[in-house]
Amino acid sequence: MKRSVLRQMIAVVSRPGILSFAGGLPSPALFPTQAYGAALSEVLQEDSRALQYGPPFAPLIAQIVRLMARRGVDVAPEQIFITTGAQQALDVLAKLLVDPGGSVLLEERSYTGMLQALASRQPRLLPVPTDLATGINVDTVARYLASGERPAFLYVIPEAHNPLGVSIGVDKRVRLVELAREYGVPIVEDDPYGLLSYDGEAPSPLRALDADWVFYVGSFSKILAPALRLGWIVAPPALIPQLTVVKEAVDLETSALTQRAVGHFLEQGQLPAHLERLRAAYGSRRDAMLAALKASFPPEAVWTIPSAGMFIWVELPAQVDCQALLERAVAEEQVAFIPGHAFALPGCSAGAAMRLNFSNATEAEIADGIARLGRVLNDIV
Amino acid sequence: MKRSVLRQMIAVVSRPGILSFAGGLPSPALFPTQAYGAALSEVLQEDSRALQYGPPFAPLIAQIVRLMARRGVDVAPEQIFITTGAQQALDVLAKLLVDPGGSVLLEERSYTGMLQALASRQPRLLPVPTDLATGINVDTVARYLASGERPAFLYVIPEAHNPLGVSIGVDKRVRLVELAREYGVPIVEDDPYGLLSYDGEAPSPLRALDADWVFYVGSFSKILAPALRLGWIVAPPALIPQLTVVKEAVDLETSALTQRAVGHFLEQGQLPAHLERLRAAYGSRRDAMLAALKASFPPEAVWTIPSAGMFIWVELPAQVDCQALLERAVAEEQVAFIPGHAFALPGCSAGAAMRLNFSNATEAEIADGIARLGRVLNDIV
Repeated sequence: MKRSVLRQMIAVVSRPGILSFAGGLPSPALFPTQAYGAALSEVLQEDSRALQYGPPFAPLIAQIVRLMARRGVDVAPEQIFITTGAQQALDVLAKLLVDPGGSVLLEERSYTGMLQALASRQPRLLPVPTDLATGINVDTVARYLASGERPAFLYVIPEAHNPLGVSIGVDKRVRLVELAREYGVPIVEDDPYGLLSYDGEAPSPLRALDADWVFYVGSFSKILAPALRLGWIVAPPALIPQLTVVKEAVDLETSALTQRAVGHFLEQGQLPAHLERLRAAYGSRRDAMLAALKASFPPEAVWTIPSAGMFIWVELPAQVDCQALLERAVAEEQVAFIPGHAFALPGCSAGAAMRLNFSNATEAEIADGIARLGRVLNDIV
Repeated sequence: MKRSVLRQMIAVVSRPGILSFAGGLPSPALFPTQAYGAALSEVLQEDSRALQYGPPFAPLIAQIVRLMARRGVDVAPEQIFITTGAQQALDVLAKLLVDPGGSVLLEERSYTGMLQALASRQPRLLPVPTDLATGINVDTVARYLASGERPAFLYVIPEAHNPLGVSIGVDKRVRLVELAREYGVPIVEDDPYGLLSYDGEAPSPLRALDADWVFYVGSFSKILAPALRLGWIVAPPALIPQLTVVKEAVDLETSALTQRAVGHFLEQGQLPAHLERLRAAYGSRRDAMLAALKASFPPEAVWTIPSAGMFIWVELPAQVDCQALLERAVAEEQVAFIPGHAFALPGCSAGAAMRLNFSNATEAEIADGIARLGRVLNDIV
């Protein structure tokens, strides 16, 4: 196990004075700070169990059931498992599903947190390519399975893939679920961005198509705030007791106070308007970044057009050394991004590429920063 | 891995109408609810990073350095590692220290959370007996080490052992640290109760005697509130980066909001007076329980006299079936405790015994509840 290159890099390039498109940070100006503070005050005043040990908080679970319905997924409270953030969800699922010597199917470029959660189990990683326009290559998944591979699970981010920004269409979702059923291979579906869609509602997640083979992972980090450290798993009810055993061993339980405060915030019906604000702001920032890329980047560069989430993936001519590019961008133009290689599976190449975050900078900063980045890039290409 | 017998049992016997001495719950009436609510409000108002992702919060670490000084331990900020509760501290230390096929030294009757944290590593458990008056049998530890065993670590709760309530004297502390140094075997020292002492200050923890071989685990659950889910490890600075890698994989980071709010609470100097209140209240409850045991329990029963913490351990004549006793106590007298076997290492016996919690009932409830328990017991013995 080694420290996430990504998080180390983010720390380095997030110095004061640097305009950073590096992190995966939501915008703090858009946090529902006042409303959440009020929710905290109210539950502290009214509920003497708010600071005590306690079981999973049923009213929060009821609200998550409603949130899932909004994503087109019909679930029962018994299928919801509360976690201390989505990273813990990935960790407990890795512990539950991956046996020693097992394997896992995941994309060649994927979310580094999943790799970290898997590191202690040391599974064989079966890499799957991703098409920048249509997402995960389902034919490759089918070939692995047809050839006899029986991975512990397939990891997918169907909506606004991190780092690639691509969403997958309904046909591929249906095929993935069919493969899971046919071969008895579970899917871990990571959906932090499904409610942050900018061109109408996102399609329903894979979990809407299958209740038995899909473990859905949700998170409040991007739609409310990361410091809540609150997420959830939708799992078959028979597996909730096993998830409970695993979770007790890692942190006993998730904060009763946080569960109550978020439950209270959601009960007051404040989320829909809040999501509208986020979608409007992040959608405009996405548009600003797409326009700036078109205006400032060399014609050899290509990029994804995300319909949701926080990231644009830019591919550059193969000869560009993106690590060197980052160093020059920081030194000469005080602007930062994450080179694609930070997201590559061990032994895989991410190509010459960069991940750009558009959620944590204003439209003016985006226009300015992408122009500065374009200057360095045009000097190199 | 199976679900903690303890937590299952606590759920069952904590039904409404039951007077429960079963859990390990602090008293919610003594939580600093208002002051912590104020701290939350203030950091939310004043610090835009309070709801964002962020690195470990240096001002909280500075306050923990001061708290450690109060326990007689001189540490540098670089030695403090923030965790999402002490259970996470035990989990990440188990991951860091225990290799496949390794072994761990721990007492025959010990904190079940440590066993749960170890379960996924499946080490050989080397059981050590505990004397109810003087604590862990250091001669047994020495014999294991002299015979060539090299466990990943020795787990100890020097102050107010859970479940036994015993604290160990300075001589044994010194000997344990000498053994750790001599054989190069780390000690994991779990100290949730060191600041909850009722007969003057508790002796300094083992970490005060050695900075290289002792990993100290601290917790805010018992001195502030469990729902904070906030704890810490004191570790050699060279190991902090490795702990960071392990922690990132399990939950990325501990809530920035919680770290800031607890830091703010501590900076205002509110802890000493709060601890005095806790000590006065819990000390009286301990005394009430000791008096009630003397008044109501049969002469064959013996118990520990804790100088700190939350628990009294009662040993009964060998023929008493404590599980049956619990069932009768709940059915006939609506009073609950945890039978000793819930704390026994696999393959070890806890004897005929019960753990009684005195922190979460008033003195009147304690007098009444112990009298009721005594009635059932006198009928059996």
